[in-house]
Amino acid sequence: MAKPIVGHLDAFFFEVCSEIRAGLQAAYGTANPFTLAISATGSGGMETAVANFVEPGSKFVVFANGFFCDRLTEMGKRHGATVVRCEKPWGETFTDEEAREVILREKPNTIAFVHAETSAGALNSGYAICAAAREVGALVIADCVTSLGAMPINIDEMGVDVAYSCSQKGMSCPPGLSPMTVSPRALEWLKTRQSPKDTWYFDLSLLADYFEGARRYHHTAPITSFYALYEALQSIEEEGLQNRFDRHHRNHLAFVAGVEAMGLTMHVAEGHRLWTLNTPRVPEGIDDLKVRQRLMAQHGIEIAGGFGPLAGKVFRIGLMGVLSTEADVLFLLEAFQAALEAEGFVSKGSGVEAARAVYAEAAVAA
Amino acid sequence: MAKPIVGHLDAFFFEVCSEIRAGLQAAYGTANPFTLAISATGSGGMETAVANFVEPGSKFVVFANGFFCDRLTEMGKRHGATVVRCEKPWGETFTDEEAREVILREKPNTIAFVHAETSAGALNSGYAICAAAREVGALVIADCVTSLGAMPINIDEMGVDVAYSCSQKGMSCPPGLSPMTVSPRALEWLKTRQSPKDTWYFDLSLLADYFEGARRYHHTAPITSFYALYEALQSIEEEGLQNRFDRHHRNHLAFVAGVEAMGLTMHVAEGHRLWTLNTPRVPEGIDDLKVRQRLMAQHGIEIAGGFGPLAGKVFRIGLMGVLSTEADVLFLLEAFQAALEAEGFVSKGSGVEAARAVYAEAAVAA
Repeated sequence: MAKPIVGHLDAFFFEVCSEIRAGLQAAYGTANPFTLAISATGSGGMETAVANFVEPGSKFVVFANGFFCDRLTEMGKRHGATVVRCEKPWGETFTDEEAREVILREKPNTIAFVHAETSAGALNSGYAICAAAREVGALVIADCVTSLGAMPINIDEMGVDVAYSCSQKGMSCPPGLSPMTVSPRALEWLKTRQSPKDTWYFDLSLLADYFEGARRYHHTAPITSFYALYEALQSIEEEGLQNRFDRHHRNHLAFVAGVEAMGLTMHVAEGHRLWTLNTPRVPEGIDDLKVRQRLMAQHGIEIAGGFGPLAGKVFRIGLMGVLSTEADVLFLLEAFQAALEAEGFVSKGSGVEAARAVYAEAAVAA
Repeated sequence: MAKPIVGHLDAFFFEVCSEIRAGLQAAYGTANPFTLAISATGSGGMETAVANFVEPGSKFVVFANGFFCDRLTEMGKRHGATVVRCEKPWGETFTDEEAREVILREKPNTIAFVHAETSAGALNSGYAICAAAREVGALVIADCVTSLGAMPINIDEMGVDVAYSCSQKGMSCPPGLSPMTVSPRALEWLKTRQSPKDTWYFDLSLLADYFEGARRYHHTAPITSFYALYEALQSIEEEGLQNRFDRHHRNHLAFVAGVEAMGLTMHVAEGHRLWTLNTPRVPEGIDDLKVRQRLMAQHGIEIAGGFGPLAGKVFRIGLMGVLSTEADVLFLLEAFQAALEAEGFVSKGSGVEAARAVYAEAAVAA
């Protein structure tokens, strides 16, 4: 980011964008030519997706099992859609049959789901949603804010039309950009869209003219942030995308083994958990805020609490990007267990030992 | 920007925001408590201003004498307003009487003007506009993208309600943030706004909850870019705001004296010119593109051409922020004159000599 800044229409900038496109295509698992970064944070990417692909009066189904589904709902309403919510408690996920049933019944124009729900720690699969969406001709939007660069997304294999993410989680960049990918099918739809768009900054047709087509001035892209994203994607390529996914998976498994050995319960069912954001439940009688303050004061470790319906009920512990390492997991488990015990929790066993066993097993398997 | 990133709800981040507020208040010439940076580029700031302060069916008068007035017009339409344009050729400005006449006649709800119009090099004063706006109860939006941090703006003295800018021009930061200020009167209006907003990312009520009030999570602010803006404002304070304005003024006068001595004509009338963006006319028979390419190839100096109605008719030459120095002006004039002459222009005199005379006179006066 300390490199000299070039103009927003400089040929070098478009070379950087081209490299970013290739890196994001790999991370997203897509061949979509329209793959770029929006000059705003992840929430700006969300609004780009919603504002372009819902219309006044169109039906927008949101699979709602966490905070960011509520945000999608709110944006859908603001951009004039009739929003139908398919609801589950935060942390639970939809079965393939449930997803298919609601889509065939509602026959929406657009569908959104949150691939990696940060508020609850749950992974929502898009396979059944996208298959049913094809049957009714709906476009599918996926929020990949907490999965991109850390977990496989497989946009093309799932059949997702529009996906957005952020730069600061799995990508380990400073926040400020929203990596985005749009399918050719969705771009075709955009050309035939009936109503005018109520956004200018996030208008994908104008952005296509800037980044993909005529290179016509739209806004002054934050060049420095694009350099950061370029470097982040270079780091991913150097590590190897599969190695990076494996690393996040292994550290997640070790962390879960650790907290379960201590006697904690994970909020999300096995097989539906994010590798990036872990939500062990707060044990009965323990004040999560005190545990978190202790971790911060004594070790400078910042973990988050639950909020909304999960306030006081779960911890939200990020293991993503450069912070998902064996050393960090072991250090975190030791400090976390000590903080819990200092607040009155009686452990069943050693979190660090259980995690070490997972690493040892992984080393043997490798 | 290389400093460690803190969380978007970290107390330290809000301290940085508080320092940024104070610095921006000085640069804008305002006591508005609601003074902050929007997490998007200058065009995002423009959309924030328009999306919050026009409503479907409201009347929006745009003083249109350049490219960015057209963008304001387009945004006004997208957000549902009835736009009335008061037009002048690019580079000409409105008299106080013209401004007053159109406002009293149209009785708009909202008015926008571009304080510093980058496409033409013209400064539009807001005094008469704001006075007339008060008479009809209209809110006034000012685009200060090319004036903030380089020229006096005097938001409060003028009576502007909403102003936005960018980080990369007068502030000399990387692009990516839009410094903004909103008057208490405009915030009061926002509370009584009749129709729901069609934007979420740029909703000032939600942003107020994040930055000013409850510190409620809205989006993940691009912390690194806020650090940059903080440092830019520190630099301005170290130089002294008035010294900075004087520097830009002096270098502008020296540059104008130089190009006029060479035999060029300024496109904008004296007294209405930007100090930051200078638009000498392209002399008869000279191809501006060839001159610009020559400057770029031989000296790495990038100057812009006119576009729209001014395509091929003016050069657009930036002298802003860290690049507005005596050394840069003299180097630029020498290279510019040589490039013009190489393309067949016959100079009347030495640009560098005329500029030197201005600097000598300024030194005597000081």
